[in-house]
Amino acid sequence: MMRIDIISAVPELLHSPLNVSIVKRAQDKGKVEIFVHNLRDYAYDKHKQIDDKPFGGGPGMLLKPEPFFECIEKLQGERNYDHIIFTAPLGKIFDQTEANRFSLGKNIIIIAGHYKGIDDRVREQFVTDEVSLGNFVLSGGELPALVVVDAIVRLIPGVLNDSESALQDSFMDGEYIEAPYYTRPAEYKGKKVPEILLSGHDKKIKDWKEEQSRILTEKWKNINSVE
Amino acid sequence: MMRIDIISAVPELLHSPLNVSIVKRAQDKGKVEIFVHNLRDYAYDKHKQIDDKPFGGGPGMLLKPEPFFECIEKLQGERNYDHIIFTAPLGKIFDQTEANRFSLGKNIIIIAGHYKGIDDRVREQFVTDEVSLGNFVLSGGELPALVVVDAIVRLIPGVLNDSESALQDSFMDGEYIEAPYYTRPAEYKGKKVPEILLSGHDKKIKDWKEEQSRILTEKWKNINSVE
Repeated sequence: MMRIDIISAVPELLHSPLNVSIVKRAQDKGKVEIFVHNLRDYAYDKHKQIDDKPFGGGPGMLLKPEPFFECIEKLQGERNYDHIIFTAPLGKIFDQTEANRFSLGKNIIIIAGHYKGIDDRVREQFVTDEVSLGNFVLSGGELPALVVVDAIVRLIPGVLNDSESALQDSFMDGEYIEAPYYTRPAEYKGKKVPEILLSGHDKKIKDWKEEQSRILTEKWKNINSVE
Repeated sequence: MMRIDIISAVPELLHSPLNVSIVKRAQDKGKVEIFVHNLRDYAYDKHKQIDDKPFGGGPGMLLKPEPFFECIEKLQGERNYDHIIFTAPLGKIFDQTEANRFSLGKNIIIIAGHYKGIDDRVREQFVTDEVSLGNFVLSGGELPALVVVDAIVRLIPGVLNDSESALQDSFMDGEYIEAPYYTRPAEYKGKKVPEILLSGHDKKIKDWKEEQSRILTEKWKNINSVE
């Protein structure tokens, strides 16, 4: 069974996404264990202080090194970890290749930063993989951590039903956008489903989907300036 | 006050991230109202069915068009919306420029897909902005919706304290990674903070931060093959 440990200064943020839908089902099926660690539980001064001002000035508060060291060293004393992931702007942009790679690990720690960031000694000492969701600013690394967990967990064998069909999803096969999908009613408020999909002609439907997929993938590459 | 309406088939997933930290504070301060709509509440058949098989075959279930039309037309009857965002693989990759643009809107709808996707007529009819977090597969659009909300909300004037300093964050100024941060203790388990940061010499500290920032930004561009 895979084990994921998430370390956060705002653990309550993580609660609902880890307890519904496919991530919950994966835990219920015994495919993954997910543990959330409240950084504050690893602060050893009497005020449970986890943040402090940055050296060299500047606004904002940083997460202190000691609680991270305490927590991670405790976990590492109990088992080996394949990946210690830090979700941060400075990182490799997350993609399906990274998700596949992480999904082969047995034990994973994910460090979520918050406030202005974390003391860089934590990153230097422990982090094996820095993951960025892209060029934007968030309040913390918790949402990126949840994204990484969702993307990994659905790749664990036995988590998805056959009908959930990870293999046909967009992006499973490199850069690839699926054809548009339609369901009943065939006509709704004057809007009709493309006739070909109602034809029952499997070969033509397959060709249409491939053509649509090709067009949408080209469009996506143009929008996003991808070669 | 900004208003954000999120439409989801798994609304319980959204609960905790919308009710902690900066997103909660923004609501408490009256800077943003966030409403979560359960797609099932807009299903009008007696079984409250919101999904159905795709036309043309293939595994998995699609979200039906009617509940989305019901919900969005009701909302549009009550006010004008600046953006109707759909979080989906086929979309413009989300970045800080998009976050800035959305943050200027007054009323925003975010549609989160789930299962295999949504009937494409919903996208055709309503969606003004398709947003993708990148080349990876998630169980649904809920986490991307939360990412978009967090990125937008922190840009609303008055949401962040001065000390939270959005202007100095990585990426606020295009592609730009901040220098590493350190806080007390100056030495911990033999690991020392860079001496320059303890020098009290403002000009040298500023130069060091700029140099580090330049190095890290170059490194980030190399890792991610950005020009």
